[in-house]
Amino acid sequence: MPELPELPVTGHGGNLLAARKAYPQAPEPWLDLSTGINPYAYPFVNPPMESFTRLPQPEELCTLEAAARAVFRAPAGSEVVAVPGTQAIIDWLPHLVRARRVGILGFTYCEHARSWEEVGAEVTIAKNLAELESQNVAIVVNPNNPDGRLVAAPELHALAAALTAHGGLLIVDEAFVDFLEPGVSAVPDISARGMLVLRSFGKAYGLPGLRLGFAIAPKPVAAKLRAALGPWPVSGAAIAIGSKALLDRAWLEAAAARLKARGSMLDKVLAGAGFAPAGGSVLFKLVRHQDAQDWFERLAESGILARRFAARPDWLRFGIVGTDADMARLRNAFGFDN
Amino acid sequence: MPELPELPVTGHGGNLLAARKAYPQAPEPWLDLSTGINPYAYPFVNPPMESFTRLPQPEELCTLEAAARAVFRAPAGSEVVAVPGTQAIIDWLPHLVRARRVGILGFTYCEHARSWEEVGAEVTIAKNLAELESQNVAIVVNPNNPDGRLVAAPELHALAAALTAHGGLLIVDEAFVDFLEPGVSAVPDISARGMLVLRSFGKAYGLPGLRLGFAIAPKPVAAKLRAALGPWPVSGAAIAIGSKALLDRAWLEAAAARLKARGSMLDKVLAGAGFAPAGGSVLFKLVRHQDAQDWFERLAESGILARRFAARPDWLRFGIVGTDADMARLRNAFGFDN
Repeated sequence: MPELPELPVTGHGGNLLAARKAYPQAPEPWLDLSTGINPYAYPFVNPPMESFTRLPQPEELCTLEAAARAVFRAPAGSEVVAVPGTQAIIDWLPHLVRARRVGILGFTYCEHARSWEEVGAEVTIAKNLAELESQNVAIVVNPNNPDGRLVAAPELHALAAALTAHGGLLIVDEAFVDFLEPGVSAVPDISARGMLVLRSFGKAYGLPGLRLGFAIAPKPVAAKLRAALGPWPVSGAAIAIGSKALLDRAWLEAAAARLKARGSMLDKVLAGAGFAPAGGSVLFKLVRHQDAQDWFERLAESGILARRFAARPDWLRFGIVGTDADMARLRNAFGFDN
Repeated sequence: MPELPELPVTGHGGNLLAARKAYPQAPEPWLDLSTGINPYAYPFVNPPMESFTRLPQPEELCTLEAAARAVFRAPAGSEVVAVPGTQAIIDWLPHLVRARRVGILGFTYCEHARSWEEVGAEVTIAKNLAELESQNVAIVVNPNNPDGRLVAAPELHALAAALTAHGGLLIVDEAFVDFLEPGVSAVPDISARGMLVLRSFGKAYGLPGLRLGFAIAPKPVAAKLRAALGPWPVSGAAIAIGSKALLDRAWLEAAAARLKARGSMLDKVLAGAGFAPAGGSVLFKLVRHQDAQDWFERLAESGILARRFAARPDWLRFGIVGTDADMARLRNAFGFDN
């Protein structure tokens, strides 16, 4: 199958502006299934007025980072750094870590490659972990976006050790790890050197507008990150809401159960429409279809935005559908008798 | 007067944690006069839920930047870039603009020097504009913090032209310009090249916890900033609140009048306590006293935090006191018969 020539609405998910431009006749409101964001947002209370009217206080930032440390089970010797979304760190790292050769386990989220190419690094998309060992910086998205591929934590630690031996660094992007078994995360056994883990907040908690994420890093890299982000790296609202939400494990467990049940319903609808499963996570489903691009168009004309990939025209990715009404809308767009 | 040996609670304003540690007996709550933040916050309505549950949309960011462009009167040919607080840009610029020699018009806000020294630039604190002309990057805080010194816009444009002639860049930090006459800002006549202006949002609008600011820049620098900050540079709440507040000129005018009236009251109290005026702005007053450090201590013991400067031990800076009760507290700490 050839690469697609000119595709409107590729790139990031969540870009409804591009979708509206490309499909101006589509009914409003759009149903955005192009992201991997939890449709059931954490039920936060509005932050106190001081979250807005004061500069965020150092001890409030400490409280947030301590909550993240406990929940991610970050070991002593590692630092947990609150960041204004992991995208901000993906953009900062190439300026803070010197690397001539960067290897990324493919096929994955495009922004890692873009940010390193921006500073002139030689970026290789690797097919396996072995190809990553000789790089200055290696990047593994785990679980992978969009196919959900998992690399076992011990393998990541072995790779980090190999990289550390020649002064390299392994970056593990755990943007979609929150609903998986605790053993999947590389954070609890993060070595003192050689590995940095990125954790998202907005996706699992359904609050991407807050702009909050975390980097778990060895002290020297963490120190560079803190200097780069300055004394007020995240908003007062992100601190207030994040500190509370992270410690609410009952909510996270209930959300996982609800998302998995909804995910099974989505699996059935996609299978019924002739899509073959190709991976995914608790927050999205990747499917394959020889007419995937036609389906993308038909869905878009119905005001439903899926995620497509310029390099993989037979793939579509769907976020979890949060309500019965939206599910009926999707089934309807697929031509099902609701 | 000698430099102070070891000063607790210098550096940034607003650090109540450090104040509480240094003065554990002080009565709570602290009255924080160490910042230049408007005590009368913009009366925002809570942002819509979508500001939190969706990724900020490109068109929403455009709306915010268009509001800023109109209010700052940024000319065609310049770009207005929303940023997560100007501090974030102060930290980014040394990584995006190559400069071996950096000149900063002193004495001023410490973070500019720190951020350039971090990347190994040779930083000179200049006494006048002429000393800045030969630098790769020149920085002028205008009005200056803490003394309120003003450089006329035509002088800044002449300096930018001189810098542009040899490929240099002038950075004008207008963090405290909002309540001054429109002619003070360098933005309306910003040249196509050679000048970048930083504008704060949180100080004038009393909402520093939002983390919002703007860079007005020539297109090439703006493009680098946008690439560095990624597609979601500020939070959904910052977009929602900022877009509305910026266009509310009636509020800004009323706030200016109220702050000036309160500032005059503060001037009188400080004069009554024996302080000599040494400059300031609508949002803070700089005063001089040979016993300034003793006064800092006495105020801190009363739970009132002023701003002091390690390099200028006879100076204190006071933010505007917002309420009669707080003013009575300050007068009381100064030993006045209220």
